[in-house]
Amino acid sequence: MAGNSFGDIFKITTFGESHGAAIGVILDGCPPNIEIDEEFIQSELDKRKPGQSKITTQRKESDTAQILSGIFERKSTGTPIAIVIPNEDQRSKDYSHIMDKFRPSHADYTYQMKYGIRDYRGGGRSSARETAARVAAGAIAKLFLKQYGIEIFAHVSGVGTIEAPNLDSTDLNSLFELRESNIVRCADPGTAIEMIDFIDGVRKDGDTVGGRISTIIRHVPVGLGEPVFDKLHADLAKAMMGINAVHGFEYGSGFEGSQLKGSAHNDIFGFENERTITHTNYSGGIQGGISNGMDITFKVAFKPVATIMRDQPTLNLSQEETTISGKGRHDPCVVPRAVIIVEAMAALVIADHLLKQRTYKNV
Amino acid sequence: MAGNSFGDIFKITTFGESHGAAIGVILDGCPPNIEIDEEFIQSELDKRKPGQSKITTQRKESDTAQILSGIFERKSTGTPIAIVIPNEDQRSKDYSHIMDKFRPSHADYTYQMKYGIRDYRGGGRSSARETAARVAAGAIAKLFLKQYGIEIFAHVSGVGTIEAPNLDSTDLNSLFELRESNIVRCADPGTAIEMIDFIDGVRKDGDTVGGRISTIIRHVPVGLGEPVFDKLHADLAKAMMGINAVHGFEYGSGFEGSQLKGSAHNDIFGFENERTITHTNYSGGIQGGISNGMDITFKVAFKPVATIMRDQPTLNLSQEETTISGKGRHDPCVVPRAVIIVEAMAALVIADHLLKQRTYKNV
Amino acid sequence: MAGNSFGDIFKITTFGESHGAAIGVILDGCPPNIEIDEEFIQSELDKRKPGQSKITTQRKESDTAQILSGIFERKSTGTPIAIVIPNEDQRSKDYSHIMDKFRPSHADYTYQMKYGIRDYRGGGRSSARETAARVAAGAIAKLFLKQYGIEIFAHVSGVGTIEAPNLDSTDLNSLFELRESNIVRCADPGTAIEMIDFIDGVRKDGDTVGGRISTIIRHVPVGLGEPVFDKLHADLAKAMMGINAVHGFEYGSGFEGSQLKGSAHNDIFGFENERTITHTNYSGGIQGGISNGMDITFKVAFKPVATIMRDQPTLNLSQEETTISGKGRHDPCVVPRAVIIVEAMAALVIADHLLKQRTYKNV
Amino acid sequence: MAGNSFGDIFKITTFGESHGAAIGVILDGCPPNIEIDEEFIQSELDKRKPGQSKITTQRKESDTAQILSGIFERKSTGTPIAIVIPNEDQRSKDYSHIMDKFRPSHADYTYQMKYGIRDYRGGGRSSARETAARVAAGAIAKLFLKQYGIEIFAHVSGVGTIEAPNLDSTDLNSLFELRESNIVRCADPGTAIEMIDFIDGVRKDGDTVGGRISTIIRHVPVGLGEPVFDKLHADLAKAMMGINAVHGFEYGSGFEGSQLKGSAHNDIFGFENERTITHTNYSGGIQGGISNGMDITFKVAFKPVATIMRDQPTLNLSQEETTISGKGRHDPCVVPRAVIIVEAMAALVIADHLLKQRTYKNV
Repeated sequence: MAGNSFGDIFKITTFGESHGAAIGVILDGCPPNIEIDEEFIQSELDKRKPGQSKITTQRKESDTAQILSGIFERKSTGTPIAIVIPNEDQRSKDYSHIMDKFRPSHADYTYQMKYGIRDYRGGGRSSARETAARVAAGAIAKLFLKQYGIEIFAHVSGVGTIEAPNLDSTDLNSLFELRESNIVRCADPGTAIEMIDFIDGVRKDGDTVGGRISTIIRHVPVGLGEPVFDKLHADLAKAMMGINAVHGFEYGSGFEGSQLKGSAHNDIFGFENERTITHTNYSGGIQGGISNGMDITFKVAFKPVATIMRDQPTLNLSQEETTISGKGRHDPCVVPRAVIIVEAMAALVIADHLLKQRTYKNV
Repeated sequence: MAGNSFGDIFKITTFGESHGAAIGVILDGCPPNIEIDEEFIQSELDKRKPGQSKITTQRKESDTAQILSGIFERKSTGTPIAIVIPNEDQRSKDYSHIMDKFRPSHADYTYQMKYGIRDYRGGGRSSARETAARVAAGAIAKLFLKQYGIEIFAHVSGVGTIEAPNLDSTDLNSLFELRESNIVRCADPGTAIEMIDFIDGVRKDGDTVGGRISTIIRHVPVGLGEPVFDKLHADLAKAMMGINAVHGFEYGSGFEGSQLKGSAHNDIFGFENERTITHTNYSGGIQGGISNGMDITFKVAFKPVATIMRDQPTLNLSQEETTISGKGRHDPCVVPRAVIIVEAMAALVIADHLLKQRTYKNV
Repeated sequence: MAGNSFGDIFKITTFGESHGAAIGVILDGCPPNIEIDEEFIQSELDKRKPGQSKITTQRKESDTAQILSGIFERKSTGTPIAIVIPNEDQRSKDYSHIMDKFRPSHADYTYQMKYGIRDYRGGGRSSARETAARVAAGAIAKLFLKQYGIEIFAHVSGVGTIEAPNLDSTDLNSLFELRESNIVRCADPGTAIEMIDFIDGVRKDGDTVGGRISTIIRHVPVGLGEPVFDKLHADLAKAMMGINAVHGFEYGSGFEGSQLKGSAHNDIFGFENERTITHTNYSGGIQGGISNGMDITFKVAFKPVATIMRDQPTLNLSQEETTISGKGRHDPCVVPRAVIIVEAMAALVIADHLLKQRTYKNV
Repeated sequence: MAGNSFGDIFKITTFGESHGAAIGVILDGCPPNIEIDEEFIQSELDKRKPGQSKITTQRKESDTAQILSGIFERKSTGTPIAIVIPNEDQRSKDYSHIMDKFRPSHADYTYQMKYGIRDYRGGGRSSARETAARVAAGAIAKLFLKQYGIEIFAHVSGVGTIEAPNLDSTDLNSLFELRESNIVRCADPGTAIEMIDFIDGVRKDGDTVGGRISTIIRHVPVGLGEPVFDKLHADLAKAMMGINAVHGFEYGSGFEGSQLKGSAHNDIFGFENERTITHTNYSGGIQGGISNGMDITFKVAFKPVATIMRDQPTLNLSQEETTISGKGRHDPCVVPRAVIIVEAMAALVIADHLLKQRTYKNV
């Protein structure tokens, strides 16, 4: 109801503000007897944490996950898993300048109006810092999905007007390696160089830029997704649109597919290696809202970060005109760190639908 | 859980198959004392019903809504409102040819695999016929929102590669009139003619085509939307992606916005006519997931209808190769009728969030 | 949220007022491929319907269930099952006398104050007529549970101060027969005669009386129930307390058990016939909120029906003192018909928890 | 779904095992701008904590609440409030004797069977230690309800066969004082002495005993409660039955009321001091599931604590017969500490329904 939970069976509830004592998450509904590899959880958090490279924010946070419950002798017990991530580098005084001013295209104004009160320090609850909690829970979802051989791969496919070519996605492992070989997390090394240069220039200019992330989910069993409102792609869309700064979502053929004719767009079935496949995949692995066993593919669009290192006109709490200056430590482009958030949310969606499907006894 | 409900407080649950006795909906959580205008509900259904024009399916359904409960002396009582829409023109024998074959890019295969059984007649539960139930409930949501002066306008902004120019949206009433002046429901009359010609050609060719619908929601109070997962645009995205054939969603600046820099994209606040506004609206009326009082704008992409009047190769239940021929009565392009579905789902989202916001006492 | 739904996975939503067009239910989440025996559903409704005997209300309703969706060739398809039961004998004018008066110990006053409007005819939504919808859905739950060999038996164990002796529960089939051999539905024939005489006397006196129903659920698999808030007995309690006129619930040793010492109350484990049992069953088949494989036992207390055929002082809508006379057709004692409602709600609880348990892969 | 959450709008999710790092709770949906008095939260926890007196367990826990989020400058912000209570006195080795044995009438066997794994130390998740998290959240609920003048009073009304006389409930403040004047928390001082003596004797005997708690909720606005399944008393019942060791719940006239006739049981309306009242209160302040403004009254029955300081026969993990000896630190009678848990859960139910009622605009 209050919007801090996601999922129905494999369900998370996050808490915490950017400059409070800690952020964290309760994961309820994780099946018992899942091997919980804490090093893996930490390695996922490390991919999201600030201060990784010259093109991310310089805030210093170790983002160390502390598991308080739900694990016994390295295995999940079926009870709630609580994870706390203390905030360390809370330079709250950095934010006194926004105490009574609304930053343009931020959540300051709407939070103030909705609640009549807000923790203005670093954006409070609206800070993308909250997504670390999602990444921790998403890591456990990935550990669960590993049992099914399900793999989730996301990478930066676009920054500003730079667009990566389509990937040869036959081997996800090598794509992961290519992606992690550069700081912008694009699996096409040539484009990565171009993107990094561009972001670095934007940063030096005190500006920011938007970007796009593309995702492939492989080995999803046939049958996941609940018609008619909880279609698999509808829940993926909600998960992605809930990530800070996301303005668009498309799956399979997406917006381009809406320009095509049915005769060109239909995916013809075939039978190969003892399984039903489609020869093309405009459906993005989902038909009628239900997974068909093919790769699930989708793309997410992120707007440019709103905090720029420039003076901008704005209003204060008394609705008088004033000027606001960019301060604090912010990313010039959010997509390199957001890759892991996209994967985490995708893992949570798939895990939740997999457990739903178990109620039909087919998985 | 099973995916047939939408909304948390203002909540609908739909039921029914394309060729069963009836489809329908229960709306639970509608506030009491709302004037329920049954003629309005019917007029909304009429905009979605089949057989409206040469560019829609020729199935004949009066789509007459029967209200069974929840209304007393033309007012809502706060108890569940049940609406039943009988199926009339169920030529089920039209569908014997798909009893044991999977139509390409339809839900036949995935339903069969998910449930181990399916009502194959006309697509059963996966048929877009189910959306009539959403339109009926959405009409009641609109009646509720009218009390707040909230208006929702959608129109066909694209068919195939044809794109309507940006609308002058200062007067929604005249846009409604322009839209209803043509059978494709595009508010730009010149583009409408082009679209109709194109769809008619596609239809004669036994083919289908995709399209796009753009929406404006006006006079939404500041403060609607629940961080962090139930952001207003996340729930709009889920609502839209749950409509049959939708492959993409974007709000505000959308995918194009992800190409911009922050300095170009930020919406600067101003104070005009006693209220806070933004001078541009790349945010699409939503900041931090919460409405800011500006127009909410979004666009939805629909893939081409999968049923084409041509022979296509496919598999049967025994996974042997066979051929399937297009039969039945289908739309060559879904967007002219989908306009009212998009509006209905948007109304349901806004109504639900408005009731959530009441728990904070601000609305 | 608005309180008209029950269950999380095997979920029902009921609708309808006592004197509207119809009442009904949507059951969402019923697994596919369950054989749906419509005659059984009707036979269950017949046990609840009015006019059965001299000790029930004389309202005439055939309570004929019409299934509108979710069934194909006599099997559930996994899609929502909608059932409508038309109201036939709506003598609404019987109720003009309560249009502007509040009947004592009824819901008239509280509905009026909660909603600011009420359908006063026959109690509207607060009428026990709504429970027919629960019985129809409960019948499907029973059909589902039959696959697991789960049996649910309830009977009238108390009327006023009359109390049936403890049953020998070794053979539920013969208990069902004994129960159905008399109109009060008590499985002890001697006590049944006493109860019938007593209720008949109360009825002739224009009065009403309360009673108690005891229930046994047999062959429930070990492991149903979700700690810590959704304990199996907590959900049974909620289900029972939601039935009209219920004022008390206890399971296992109940209130009497709270007078005992631990040394007398503990159930000692044993191993018999290849399964773990307890030698006593003070736990009522549930330990730590989770079924342990023993019989689940509970008792429910119903207050006397509030409508008596006598004049009573009361207030009108303007809060002035007035007199109200008992009219309409009412039960002198609710428990003979409520037996089937108790069973239905119990079946819904067990079915829901069984599906939840499937997500752990143990059922 | 997994049962660790309670409430729909004012919603808690608890986590933690008896001998893990910590227990805790996230409260989501608390309205903004509520004054959060941390000293009050701690004082509530102190009433539940172990080691209070000779008739409670001697485990030493300070039960210090650490608030991690959701509070800013001593006020709620509308974002999730996370509270962590570290476990201090975890003598886990005390529990090695139950690692592979099932304690009679405990949750050991059912947890093991449900999940296939369990944290056996001190009962793990099934330990009543978890209820400290409920008390912390319940304290915030009380702070919220204070704005409405709503008061909640519970006390021990029965221990074994000892029963306190009915209280003169005209002044709740003096009842609170009387209750806190003795270690058994019974507001009748004479009965309290008797109860304490009895429990102390039982304890010396290595045995335990059950008891009963009675509750009064005062100044609840008219209109709280959602028909038909989420009746106010149905949610109170579920809340109470979810407390460890509870075996029975009744409200208003309860089980005794089921022995009465309608003519004796009906509550006649009157108008006094500008408000509608009933001259008697067999309805327990709730009619048709909705509060009527009178005192809400209910009683809860607790079974005797299962851990006794005696040898008992039982089974081990291999289902062989063995003997188990009572060890660890346990309460001889749970009701003195449970009083505050009952109040906390009642506060959470009322707060949740109050927020629901706001969606109708009447509160």
